[in-house]
Amino acid sequence: MAKKTSAAPDIERMRHSCAHVLAQAVLEMFPEAKLGFGPAIENGFYYDFDLPRTLIPEDLPILEKKMKHIVKQSQTFRVEAKPIDKSIAFLKKIKQDYKVEAVNELKKEGFDSITFYENINQKGEVTFVDMCEGPHVEKTGQIGAFKLTHTAGAYWRGDEKRPMLQRIYGVGFPTQQELDDYLKQMEEAKKRDHRRLGVDLGLFIFDDEVGPGLPLWLPKGAYVRHKIMEFAFNTYLSNGYDPVCTPHIASAALWSHSGHLDFYSESMYGPIKIDEDEYRLKPMNCPLHVKMYNSSTKSYRELPVRWTEMGTVYRYERSGTLHGLTRVRGFTQDDAHIICRPDQLKEELAKALKLTLYILNTFGFENFEMNVSVRDPENKAKFIGDDDRWDHAENTLKEVLEESGFKNYVYDIGGAVFYGPKIDVKVADSIGRKWQLSTMQVDFNLPTKFGMTYVGEDGKDHTPFMIHRALLGSLERFMGVLIEHYGGAFPAWLAPVPVIIIPVAQAHEKYANQVLEDFKKAGIRAEISPSNDTLGKRIRESEMKKIPYMAVIGEKEVKDKSLTIRDYKTKNQETMKTAKFLDRLQKEIADRNG
Amino acid sequence: MAKKTSAAPDIERMRHSCAHVLAQAVLEMFPEAKLGFGPAIENGFYYDFDLPRTLIPEDLPILEKKMKHIVKQSQTFRVEAKPIDKSIAFLKKIKQDYKVEAVNELKKEGFDSITFYENINQKGEVTFVDMCEGPHVEKTGQIGAFKLTHTAGAYWRGDEKRPMLQRIYGVGFPTQQELDDYLKQMEEAKKRDHRRLGVDLGLFIFDDEVGPGLPLWLPKGAYVRHKIMEFAFNTYLSNGYDPVCTPHIASAALWSHSGHLDFYSESMYGPIKIDEDEYRLKPMNCPLHVKMYNSSTKSYRELPVRWTEMGTVYRYERSGTLHGLTRVRGFTQDDAHIICRPDQLKEELAKALKLTLYILNTFGFENFEMNVSVRDPENKAKFIGDDDRWDHAENTLKEVLEESGFKNYVYDIGGAVFYGPKIDVKVADSIGRKWQLSTMQVDFNLPTKFGMTYVGEDGKDHTPFMIHRALLGSLERFMGVLIEHYGGAFPAWLAPVPVIIIPVAQAHEKYANQVLEDFKKAGIRAEISPSNDTLGKRIRESEMKKIPYMAVIGEKEVKDKSLTIRDYKTKNQETMKTAKFLDRLQKEIADRNG
Repeated sequence: MAKKTSAAPDIERMRHSCAHVLAQAVLEMFPEAKLGFGPAIENGFYYDFDLPRTLIPEDLPILEKKMKHIVKQSQTFRVEAKPIDKSIAFLKKIKQDYKVEAVNELKKEGFDSITFYENINQKGEVTFVDMCEGPHVEKTGQIGAFKLTHTAGAYWRGDEKRPMLQRIYGVGFPTQQELDDYLKQMEEAKKRDHRRLGVDLGLFIFDDEVGPGLPLWLPKGAYVRHKIMEFAFNTYLSNGYDPVCTPHIASAALWSHSGHLDFYSESMYGPIKIDEDEYRLKPMNCPLHVKMYNSSTKSYRELPVRWTEMGTVYRYERSGTLHGLTRVRGFTQDDAHIICRPDQLKEELAKALKLTLYILNTFGFENFEMNVSVRDPENKAKFIGDDDRWDHAENTLKEVLEESGFKNYVYDIGGAVFYGPKIDVKVADSIGRKWQLSTMQVDFNLPTKFGMTYVGEDGKDHTPFMIHRALLGSLERFMGVLIEHYGGAFPAWLAPVPVIIIPVAQAHEKYANQVLEDFKKAGIRAEISPSNDTLGKRIRESEMKKIPYMAVIGEKEVKDKSLTIRDYKTKNQETMKTAKFLDRLQKEIADRNG
Repeated sequence: MAKKTSAAPDIERMRHSCAHVLAQAVLEMFPEAKLGFGPAIENGFYYDFDLPRTLIPEDLPILEKKMKHIVKQSQTFRVEAKPIDKSIAFLKKIKQDYKVEAVNELKKEGFDSITFYENINQKGEVTFVDMCEGPHVEKTGQIGAFKLTHTAGAYWRGDEKRPMLQRIYGVGFPTQQELDDYLKQMEEAKKRDHRRLGVDLGLFIFDDEVGPGLPLWLPKGAYVRHKIMEFAFNTYLSNGYDPVCTPHIASAALWSHSGHLDFYSESMYGPIKIDEDEYRLKPMNCPLHVKMYNSSTKSYRELPVRWTEMGTVYRYERSGTLHGLTRVRGFTQDDAHIICRPDQLKEELAKALKLTLYILNTFGFENFEMNVSVRDPENKAKFIGDDDRWDHAENTLKEVLEESGFKNYVYDIGGAVFYGPKIDVKVADSIGRKWQLSTMQVDFNLPTKFGMTYVGEDGKDHTPFMIHRALLGSLERFMGVLIEHYGGAFPAWLAPVPVIIIPVAQAHEKYANQVLEDFKKAGIRAEISPSNDTLGKRIRESEMKKIPYMAVIGEKEVKDKSLTIRDYKTKNQETMKTAKFLDRLQKEIADRNG
């Protein structure tokens, strides 16, 4: 196992140093520039500036050139702590008003000194000074490959009542090869952006009058979503889960009882008044499942119960953070709760993990990163529940992963939720990006809060273990990831139209219609592309729609009762008997290949 | 076709007269009784009284006897209009305070006289006087068979701040046979009450902390609901419908645009604040579907679009009117919108009707009452939309019914919704009660409000026709009706457990487990009843759970690889090879028999 860090520390240090060099380059270009802050971020860095004019795209290569020059000079980073008042005086002198404000606040908070980093060139001259916590690389020469990518507006301190600064983003990697790979991945990601593909393929829309973050699924997108749900739900049922179904609202009394109004209210929407009571949109399904569990006495023989619901939940996200399908305000979870005896915990978690892998494999996800989040043993007060139960659950999670062949999981000490430890599963998509999808969490909170029990073999009441698990996570987010993973080219079992029949000319339409009927009878949602347009145009259209198979019908095909099949993915073309292709396609759909 | 009335007028007249006779009997028993009002209602009548003591069940036969005596006397009803002030004076004299209050109000409204009905016995004596609009039968002897059924509290004028009166309910029919049939039906209905069966069979619960009118579906109920939805949804898809999916909330701006906040707000829940905007739970799916239609230009070649969604909507009902599953605050509609050209309207309605009959037939509903609701030609201002379109739609609805063999539909003039005419389908359940389930409505409002168009063959914009249709209606209500229709004994294709395997003794459990595995592999949700309990007890339990088939396994069955099958419905018992039964059951489930 590996202890968790957000990135290797030296890469982060390098990216942070890159941000400094960017600031130095900006000051060379605009000596009157006022500096905000510039941290390292995932894959790169940014820096915020107050500049005399708005940046244009052409500015970025110029700044990059200046940065490269500074790197080439291999200037030394020198750190120095200055007393706080001296720091303020210095920053005032160099007219860095934003930094002055920030240090004044630090002073109020009780800081008595500030660290500054100076760049020293080969001649020993100080070329740039910035207040900064660090750390940095020793010399700018240690900075690897970088690229400035784009600019964006950013409020000072993230506060929309404060001035808007200009943020310059960059990416940085130790080697040019890594940078090139990353940029290529980004280029590919751009082409696969699910927001663009969603429009191009007619999958979903957002509508201002409906509200931001609330997707409306058009027929083609709703079909794909339906097939995913159908597959997942039926798989759960045939794996020993029972369906349940609960409303989208419940009275505030319930959310108060469950603790959501205490610890989760920021993600919950405001109250809805009904008669004299307040109701809330559900942000989670759990308390409703607990209510059903408690509606009758359970014997140890009845456990485990495994209850699954395609439950649509509503959680507040600030409008600025909404992003296509991957960050929305309402989404459907393939939720389930497993309520079991302590002696069943391991088997249930192992089964849930196996099911997770099966489901994710079906969508072509093959590379997984397992994350185990446990309690911080130094800070037990942050977590609720018995020591014994925590130890049991944490050890079980580790055992289950190890026995399932995942020796190299990330071990996040202190990363557990307050109510219990968990396994999170990240998958790598077809262009190597990682997405967190599945989760399995042990919950010590709700069984206690709602007094959940089962009657043991000893005739006494015992508290069961409760596991939350969602394998696809949010259906909306999963669809967003899947659209990008497939680049919009869904396999035949998910494609809204798996095959389009293209008669070359009007004379071939009769046979095309027969073929269409055969396909429909076989339960395949084929379509015909009528011969009004040229063959070339229709083939291009089908390509644009990323339809898995084109079935072209000309003279020869009518005569032979065959089809000339063009495969979207391989671009191969093959003529075969209609019946043979139908069989092959039926099998491909039934097996969920591709 | 038949013009609509709520019941044949002479039956209503008889029931109303029955209420009068009841009041007369009550006054004989309690001379100081104060009378409220007593109308005819569906299948019977009631009368409200302020009495010196609370009625007990034993009072009802006594009152019934007194009523029968009055009927036997065949007293004449004599009608007389008295000037209003004289009426007040008279009612004061006989100390009927509630009536005095009522007449004082009528006076304020401008009435100048009041009709009274007097009962005159054979000797010419007035035995009873009551103010009443009538009409009544001529003589009490014309009153058929009746029975007092129960009592309940009822606020004077329905106002909970006014005194609580005692309401006595009765049922009445022209003949004893009809009364007996009705009482038998009611007896049967009581046994089938879905609220009781919901508890007994573990189908669903309501929970005070969640809120009234919000069902939580337990595994067995959720399974049945899921199978119904799956069947209906897949049937729609294979009949040319496309799926869509929309959120459960939308901004108030949308509901204002659609007109819901004007004409439907009483059924809508209060606003939910998100950022600076107000949102509402959706009471209908329509405006969201319209938004999707309008998100791209449609050509006449793309019509009809048929979009279906299992859409959960939330509508306010007063807590006093909530009733099990048949009147709830949140329910899922098997909703669809068909948007078509005028020349497609007839075919689309005919197809929708055919689909309706197919779906309802599958659940064993065979008797339908068709209702066509049209505009009142005398009062066109109440309805929006062009005359031409109304005529077109109304005639089409009639034609479609007639050409589908429904000549005897009920024709409800003025019963149309303000936005268009409709067909409502009522079904008779297995004990003869009628339920309104399916609806097909033409809508002239939304296409106009949202400016829906399609580009015609002439290259110009045209307004399409829009049809709302829901075949099951509310899934929750449908489940309530279905539970009562089946008396909780679901056919094998819907049953949460279609077959229970009962090994007679422990020695037979091994084979029982093999059979279970075979069933599971065949996709049949069988269960085993372990041999801890006596055979008799286990058979009784299975009967109580109304499991379609018991498969009993003893010595002989193990040896012969057979099962002794007990059929819940027919109570027949038959021993057959396991493979044969499995085949038979699989076919029964696939064909949705029973």
